[in-house]
Amino acid sequence: MHVLVIGAAGMVGRKLVERLAAEPTALGFEISKLTLTDALEPPVPPSLASISSALTADLAQPGEPEKLITGRPDVIFHLAAIVSGEAETDFDKGYAVNLDGSRHLFDAIYREGRREAYFPKVIFASSIAVFGQPFPDKIGDDFFLTPLTSYGTQKAITELLLADYTRKGIFDGVGIRLPTVCVRPGKPNKAASGFFSNILREPMAGQEAVLPVDENVRHWFASPRAAVGFFIHTAGMDTSTIGPRRNLTMPGLSATVGEEIEALRRVAGDKAVKLIRKVPDPAIQKIVAGWAPDFDAQRAASLGFVAETSFDEIIRIHLEDELEGKLP
Amino acid sequence: MHVLVIGAAGMVGRKLVERLAAEPTALGFEISKLTLTDALEPPVPPSLASISSALTADLAQPGEPEKLITGRPDVIFHLAAIVSGEAETDFDKGYAVNLDGSRHLFDAIYREGRREAYFPKVIFASSIAVFGQPFPDKIGDDFFLTPLTSYGTQKAITELLLADYTRKGIFDGVGIRLPTVCVRPGKPNKAASGFFSNILREPMAGQEAVLPVDENVRHWFASPRAAVGFFIHTAGMDTSTIGPRRNLTMPGLSATVGEEIEALRRVAGDKAVKLIRKVPDPAIQKIVAGWAPDFDAQRAASLGFVAETSFDEIIRIHLEDELEGKLP
Repeated sequence: MHVLVIGAAGMVGRKLVERLAAEPTALGFEISKLTLTDALEPPVPPSLASISSALTADLAQPGEPEKLITGRPDVIFHLAAIVSGEAETDFDKGYAVNLDGSRHLFDAIYREGRREAYFPKVIFASSIAVFGQPFPDKIGDDFFLTPLTSYGTQKAITELLLADYTRKGIFDGVGIRLPTVCVRPGKPNKAASGFFSNILREPMAGQEAVLPVDENVRHWFASPRAAVGFFIHTAGMDTSTIGPRRNLTMPGLSATVGEEIEALRRVAGDKAVKLIRKVPDPAIQKIVAGWAPDFDAQRAASLGFVAETSFDEIIRIHLEDELEGKLP
Repeated sequence: MHVLVIGAAGMVGRKLVERLAAEPTALGFEISKLTLTDALEPPVPPSLASISSALTADLAQPGEPEKLITGRPDVIFHLAAIVSGEAETDFDKGYAVNLDGSRHLFDAIYREGRREAYFPKVIFASSIAVFGQPFPDKIGDDFFLTPLTSYGTQKAITELLLADYTRKGIFDGVGIRLPTVCVRPGKPNKAASGFFSNILREPMAGQEAVLPVDENVRHWFASPRAAVGFFIHTAGMDTSTIGPRRNLTMPGLSATVGEEIEALRRVAGDKAVKLIRKVPDPAIQKIVAGWAPDFDAQRAASLGFVAETSFDEIIRIHLEDELEGKLP
């Protein structure tokens, strides 16, 4: 089977490819060919080099999605996006990449299928940003999509296109609404959500981290390992049981910042917790107040998707996957 | 104020313009200029001829939406669409007109506003086709959108764009989710929903009509007069009370086909009811089984939108507006 990963240089994309390198049969079928693409050339794991090709592509440019589809990949992971903050400040670029890029990709599949029978599986990374406040205590599987960002709007529209193109038999699409991924590896960044990871990752590395919100802020999380697991599970699953509602809120862990900090204390001790510096930031507080606190992701659970059930587990996964199992 | 009606040759568009001709102050402000457009040149009521211009425009063609926006209309009624059946059979045309046409219109407003400050009110005709089965007994205001047709998908996507462009301050948008309009004037057509009107309109005119479904089929209705009223009300209302959820399910009447027929009997007698011929049609039964039976449209009601509360009233409106108040 030919597997295409679009957005292979991003955090989830890289971890997905690393997982395929570590466990080549993870998808439940043999990968005969692997195409990795992103705006920047994505890394290729040495053990997959013989079957892999890496290329740069800008989905928003005419002709670029067609280039990816001429190879007729059987499974397409579509993880490419302009991130939330940039999509909000650069309205035109956000729509060009996140909406038009996805649509051009879907239309390239449609046209290839009209040329010669073609029915790939398309697994799309959506986001809980498709939801907007006010929320019920737990957001159920039939709560409506009222995004309050352009990023969330672009994801919600792509979900609708994916469902309709699937209904029309153009491809076999599944949308995966990711929780906020935590602990994100790498350096602290300026994303409004960055602190959720910073206050764990930095203290575990002996570094200070800034907490800009109250400890009672509640949000919805899954580890990078769980996020990769959602995509792997979808690639291997029988999609005929999903029905026409093709976009699924993934399971996750609902936790407060205070619960995060207590888990850090249990795993890494008071010394780590003391490295968290409280610097209230009203701008970030306002953004975060609009985010979803909790979900009841029954459909995904019944389809076999799993995530962590405690922040201790999320932190231990970070230790195992990023720090070789031990605190520095 | 300059008012633009896109889709002015359609049934609701024509009735909206006729209402403005009959009651020039209906919108709560003076209309200084009226631009009417559609794929076919729309009729201009004689009493509005001095302030009106009629033109043909195909929203899906590059440059056409810009032509409509250069006149900087203050209020834009966007009623243009390829109908449900055609959008389903002609996938490309449906997306080109119903999705791209709407987006080009919104983008033309965006670009005009970047050239020189501009903030029109945009009132968009959406549809209860944005919902897809399975349904709760009553569909509430926060039930999610899972369209099961390309038409419904295109309407749902336009709703999302309208909400985001409104949030970004590009225009002041409101989406109006119309119930099935009944009694539709004119000739019987082949739309799957046609029978709901045919079985009332034709017998009242002394003609036979075919009923292809069971009498227990339940659906959601409003008269053409109520539909026009929704648009008029929106044009005059203070939209600041709506909040960010800009797309509203309109009030309507939930009724079964059997209740329709009993109302016909009360208004037009047994003689009319005897003209309904039952010819079960499994294809139409299957389509109609996927349609929404009932809503709890609280938000729209609280914002002052009103519809009929009985089928007798819907039939009397048909008599008044189409048959000069009496049975032929």
